[in-house]
Amino acid sequence: MTTAGTAHETTTRTGPAAARQHSLREHNLELVARAVFEGPEPLSRAGVAAATGLARATVSTLVDQLVAARLVRELPAVTGGRAGRPAVPLVPAPRSVVGLGLEVNVDYLGARVLDLTGDVVVDRVVPGALHDSDPAVVLRRLGELAREVSDGVAASGMTVAGARLALPGLVDPRTGLLEVAPNLGWSTLDPVPPLGLGDLPVRIANEAKLAALAELAGGSDVAAPDSFVFVSGDVGIGAAIVVDRALFLGERGWNGEIGHVVVDPAGPRCSCGAFGCLEQYAGKEAMMRAAGLPTDAPLAALVALLTERDAAARGGSGVVARAGSAAAALPAGRALGSALADFVNLLDVSTIVLGGAYTELLPWLRADVEAVLADRVLAAPFVDLEVRAAQAGPQAALTGGAREVLRAVLADPAAWV
Amino acid sequence: MTTAGTAHETTTRTGPAAARQHSLREHNLELVARAVFEGPEPLSRAGVAAATGLARATVSTLVDQLVAARLVRELPAVTGGRAGRPAVPLVPAPRSVVGLGLEVNVDYLGARVLDLTGDVVVDRVVPGALHDSDPAVVLRRLGELAREVSDGVAASGMTVAGARLALPGLVDPRTGLLEVAPNLGWSTLDPVPPLGLGDLPVRIANEAKLAALAELAGGSDVAAPDSFVFVSGDVGIGAAIVVDRALFLGERGWNGEIGHVVVDPAGPRCSCGAFGCLEQYAGKEAMMRAAGLPTDAPLAALVALLTERDAAARGGSGVVARAGSAAAALPAGRALGSALADFVNLLDVSTIVLGGAYTELLPWLRADVEAVLADRVLAAPFVDLEVRAAQAGPQAALTGGAREVLRAVLADPAAWV
Repeated sequence: MTTAGTAHETTTRTGPAAARQHSLREHNLELVARAVFEGPEPLSRAGVAAATGLARATVSTLVDQLVAARLVRELPAVTGGRAGRPAVPLVPAPRSVVGLGLEVNVDYLGARVLDLTGDVVVDRVVPGALHDSDPAVVLRRLGELAREVSDGVAASGMTVAGARLALPGLVDPRTGLLEVAPNLGWSTLDPVPPLGLGDLPVRIANEAKLAALAELAGGSDVAAPDSFVFVSGDVGIGAAIVVDRALFLGERGWNGEIGHVVVDPAGPRCSCGAFGCLEQYAGKEAMMRAAGLPTDAPLAALVALLTERDAAARGGSGVVARAGSAAAALPAGRALGSALADFVNLLDVSTIVLGGAYTELLPWLRADVEAVLADRVLAAPFVDLEVRAAQAGPQAALTGGAREVLRAVLADPAAWV
Repeated sequence: MTTAGTAHETTTRTGPAAARQHSLREHNLELVARAVFEGPEPLSRAGVAAATGLARATVSTLVDQLVAARLVRELPAVTGGRAGRPAVPLVPAPRSVVGLGLEVNVDYLGARVLDLTGDVVVDRVVPGALHDSDPAVVLRRLGELAREVSDGVAASGMTVAGARLALPGLVDPRTGLLEVAPNLGWSTLDPVPPLGLGDLPVRIANEAKLAALAELAGGSDVAAPDSFVFVSGDVGIGAAIVVDRALFLGERGWNGEIGHVVVDPAGPRCSCGAFGCLEQYAGKEAMMRAAGLPTDAPLAALVALLTERDAAARGGSGVVARAGSAAAALPAGRALGSALADFVNLLDVSTIVLGGAYTELLPWLRADVEAVLADRVLAAPFVDLEVRAAQAGPQAALTGGAREVLRAVLADPAAWV
């Protein structure tokens, strides 16, 4: 099995001697770039030298290269209290090199561009009903959206470094094939050519894995712990296991398929062919059905309904707890708790981060999830199990994908110099 | 979370300078010991020097120390084809320093001694019915058994280096406490003092984890792969996750609790308090009940019954497959398949090793387990899932425990010199 983040692009070398020299410069460039990008405060060239242990002159040359490559930007010089040359703070360059996150999910297509500062430059999410859809048609549409978005940012002078396509299914990183996405009804295909994105490097990845990476990357007030299980609940339900801030991928990256964990063997048939899978209770469409809404209703409709029922239940007395109304309106909670209890019993994790639709629904899920975890997790009396809402916002796989592209840029800045 | 083997004993250092010198000698001793113990063929001193890169004179001194410490034994010298001093083959010393594996399980107590060659020197397994037992009484009995066994080997001139106690429950390695063992009815206790084994270093560990290590250690014709899930089926059912030949322990080593994975939420109440856990279908007592045998009948009785039914089913025609009779006699197969499918969906492993009672029962379980895996594992069409019998023999946790003691000796041979 593999514990690793997403693999990075590699560049070709010309020979052993050249490689050694090339890679020393590359290595130093990466060190300098990391110092600028990961420091809590903007550093000057002197600060980078101190942080990396490299000579001032070397740092200066490398910083110049990163500035010329538009990865790093110099802020106006500030004069310190002491005598000497004023320091030039270095920061990630805004609106220059950018990453493109793409996603096909069962109820939307999306494209999101992030720049090196972490800012969202463009965000396009197009609702759709993509059950049992024609991959050629859907991917062509997503390709058009992606071209629109990248033409737009290119026209503003930005460079799209690459794209990550998030898919709700089993993705084989070795072959670049999507093996199966039960809710889309897609199987064994290479989704990149139909996008028609020409020379733009596009890689594919599982939706929940990219969303978990978005969670790790921060940009939130409440930092994720170093190890957690991330569960992304949409029409399908996927999960990712994060150990020491890296994805734990199992043998092929096909782990975390919590949507197909048994909740009740006598339950309804799932899109995967088996019976009583979690998705049939706690997938978005199952939750809509249970609430008496159309399966393709927007999440906001479910939230509005649950809020309304809460208000009605409070009625005159005003003291009916949300937990009380949750089980009736959203039986998903107990099913999700059951599958999560299996996960915790098998894996021994203590933090569960709920993303996708679950983030907004957590107030109506929490009491049931926590009650079932307390009942079913053998170690529950000895562990502080924490269930928390994801922080990375909606369609987090788009953010995670764009960030992965930029992470690859920073892991090999020499390719941009 | 932690990926690691069982921690090793450490020795006290007297100060930084002393530590540095001490640890260089220790390190070299360990290198030499490993060369002798892990080589495919017996090495001479010259061979050890070649294998380790250490100087001949250094190797000779260290080998002399290992021989004096009775960790290594010299075989009679053999004269090679060429002129020169005859070579003295070095091998692990038999019947000298030994490890003691101890176990409390729901239906037996055990003590097993292994020597450095991997031979079983003594093996004592005492059947018992230890449901809801008094830990003080049971541990005193196990302590008596352990003393008997270690007095015996000591009388034959062997030295017991330490003991590992395997327990069917959640063991906290930081505190040395058993937190809970549902089938024994034990909770939060330190099981070492009641053993009354005086100065003998005793550590505790989860039964399935030690049994998985026994599997890894080899001693079998069919080697385990580097990564697999090991499931130990007795009255309770535990599992261990092995990644790249090391235990993957989760945050506290409390993973692999497959016995409490949901098979059917409408199922019977489990010893853990929850309903429909795997143990209620595929634990040893559940299997005995399903076959119409007393719950405390020996495994051999169940095997005999299943064999007999097969013969009867074959009747005149002689061609009824075992698979046909399995589901009727042993409904455990489908339940086990369901929990294993959850495990594979969540973890992405392709080899499942079945130990404990499952090893002998595999002919009657395999067809159902494989059918359910094929139905429920999302990646099943793209992966060769393999279900195989454990190779380490019955009560493998005893073997794993004794081996762990010896592994600690070899990781720090200086303590014995």
